[in-house]
Amino acid sequence: MPDAAGEAVVRVTLSGVCNTDLELARGYAGFRGTIGHEFVGVVEDPGGGPIARGERVVGEINAGCGDCARCRRSDPRHCPNRTVLGIVGRDGAHADLLRLPARNLVRVPDAVTDVQAVFVEPLAAAWGVLERCPMALGTKVAVVGDGKLGLLCAMVLRAQGLAPVLIGKHASKLALARGVETFTLDARPADRSFDVVVEATGAPAGLELATALLVPQGKLVLKSTFHGLASFDTARVVVDELQIIGSRCGRFAPALELLPQIDVEALVSEVVPLERGVDALQRAAAPGVLKVLLSR
Amino acid sequence: MPDAAGEAVVRVTLSGVCNTDLELARGYAGFRGTIGHEFVGVVEDPGGGPIARGERVVGEINAGCGDCARCRRSDPRHCPNRTVLGIVGRDGAHADLLRLPARNLVRVPDAVTDVQAVFVEPLAAAWGVLERCPMALGTKVAVVGDGKLGLLCAMVLRAQGLAPVLIGKHASKLALARGVETFTLDARPADRSFDVVVEATGAPAGLELATALLVPQGKLVLKSTFHGLASFDTARVVVDELQIIGSRCGRFAPALELLPQIDVEALVSEVVPLERGVDALQRAAAPGVLKVLLSR
Repeated sequence: MPDAAGEAVVRVTLSGVCNTDLELARGYAGFRGTIGHEFVGVVEDPGGGPIARGERVVGEINAGCGDCARCRRSDPRHCPNRTVLGIVGRDGAHADLLRLPARNLVRVPDAVTDVQAVFVEPLAAAWGVLERCPMALGTKVAVVGDGKLGLLCAMVLRAQGLAPVLIGKHASKLALARGVETFTLDARPADRSFDVVVEATGAPAGLELATALLVPQGKLVLKSTFHGLASFDTARVVVDELQIIGSRCGRFAPALELLPQIDVEALVSEVVPLERGVDALQRAAAPGVLKVLLSR
Repeated sequence: MPDAAGEAVVRVTLSGVCNTDLELARGYAGFRGTIGHEFVGVVEDPGGGPIARGERVVGEINAGCGDCARCRRSDPRHCPNRTVLGIVGRDGAHADLLRLPARNLVRVPDAVTDVQAVFVEPLAAAWGVLERCPMALGTKVAVVGDGKLGLLCAMVLRAQGLAPVLIGKHASKLALARGVETFTLDARPADRSFDVVVEATGAPAGLELATALLVPQGKLVLKSTFHGLASFDTARVVVDELQIIGSRCGRFAPALELLPQIDVEALVSEVVPLERGVDALQRAAAPGVLKVLLSR
């Protein structure tokens, strides 16, 4: 854990349940503590930072040591000594108060509602696809998976001027990706027809489908993690010279800029009081449910 | 199959046994025909091309349709209608004569011996690592696997001014990579210490080791194919944002230029007459044996 000096305290207004929370609750990665890493709140103690008590904030979840090569390049996402809010060595956002380094906090503009703001973290993760895999306009790109992450990825790509195709199981979820061309699995586009495929299903079968959709020398952006090992056909990767690119967190600043263009509120299935957090996690895991928010 | 017009005939002088030949002989990819794709020979019929009868040549093994977008970009390696010498839909080099499109042939300079020339194809494949994954000088790079392909990859990287580390099982094979720092598995470098790792072991365990050696956001260049599926830890790929890059064939021109700097002859274990081709394949599969050449 880094030194507590320079740590701000935030009173959480609203927090969002992510699939990672569900995995952590099942014991993934051995985390013990309060989960939750999507939030909007109000500064309770600025911790020596520039954002005053009472201001509305969101916060980047990776807290670096501040001193390693990665942190000195202003990117604590891969600091070897990092803690991660509600994921690694640091209590998270499904609580009344949370702590983060003051430098991690980002002020929320007045025009952004609390419900929108709580989507900054997952939207940043979706935007992270472009950070890891820059795409020229006209790139043929598909997103596989119609869960929250897949929907956000498709909407972010569209907001960036690309024309992504979204492929998923559920017509009702696909309909939420405004302005995006969508396909259900049984009517999916032909194999080997996309330059880039973003895999956001959270299931090994999605990896197989994503690979099948790629042209030779195509790029598969891997967003979702699976429990345990996933298998893949290495011969296909070598013979067709595919590329598999892992992508985790994104940056908050571009995500905040994107917010007005993306109807994140359509993804909210339920708002549940924090006291009913355990129920909320069960609801979030139910079929057909998208984002569950925890209110105070 | 493309039209035979524009096809040259080459009388093979020497051909090399590749691990892919062994896989094909075991039924991999369902190829039926004469195997062999590493060769040097003499033009018997120029097929309308610019290289005259009697000249010494090697040949690029991917024969494209000449008409698709890939071929028009002068890269038939991913032509969807390609044949591949001794691998896909085209008889190969372990024969007296072979056919290739005249445009695939490359003249061999006088200073290059036949034994050297037969290594142009595997050397091009090794050089292909840099085509798929360009590396700045100073990049920390390891090659995993001390077979023919791993040795060539390490030597090519070194010839390009990099300082690769080669990791393998056999001290006797490692010693052939002149000027390259080598490690046996039991004394291998620390995990998470390389920016790029080239996987050339031909075994799923190599994939696991290669992944372990990568720093966050590191790149794994996958050269070797495995029978069936290999499994990998997708969570590691996503959390550490690794990249897996498939690499197959390379270009012949840069490989020919590299030949004088690389002691490929040290990799020759045996030269066997073509009539004893079946024995030669068995020898090539034996432990400790590197390149087996077939003479006429």
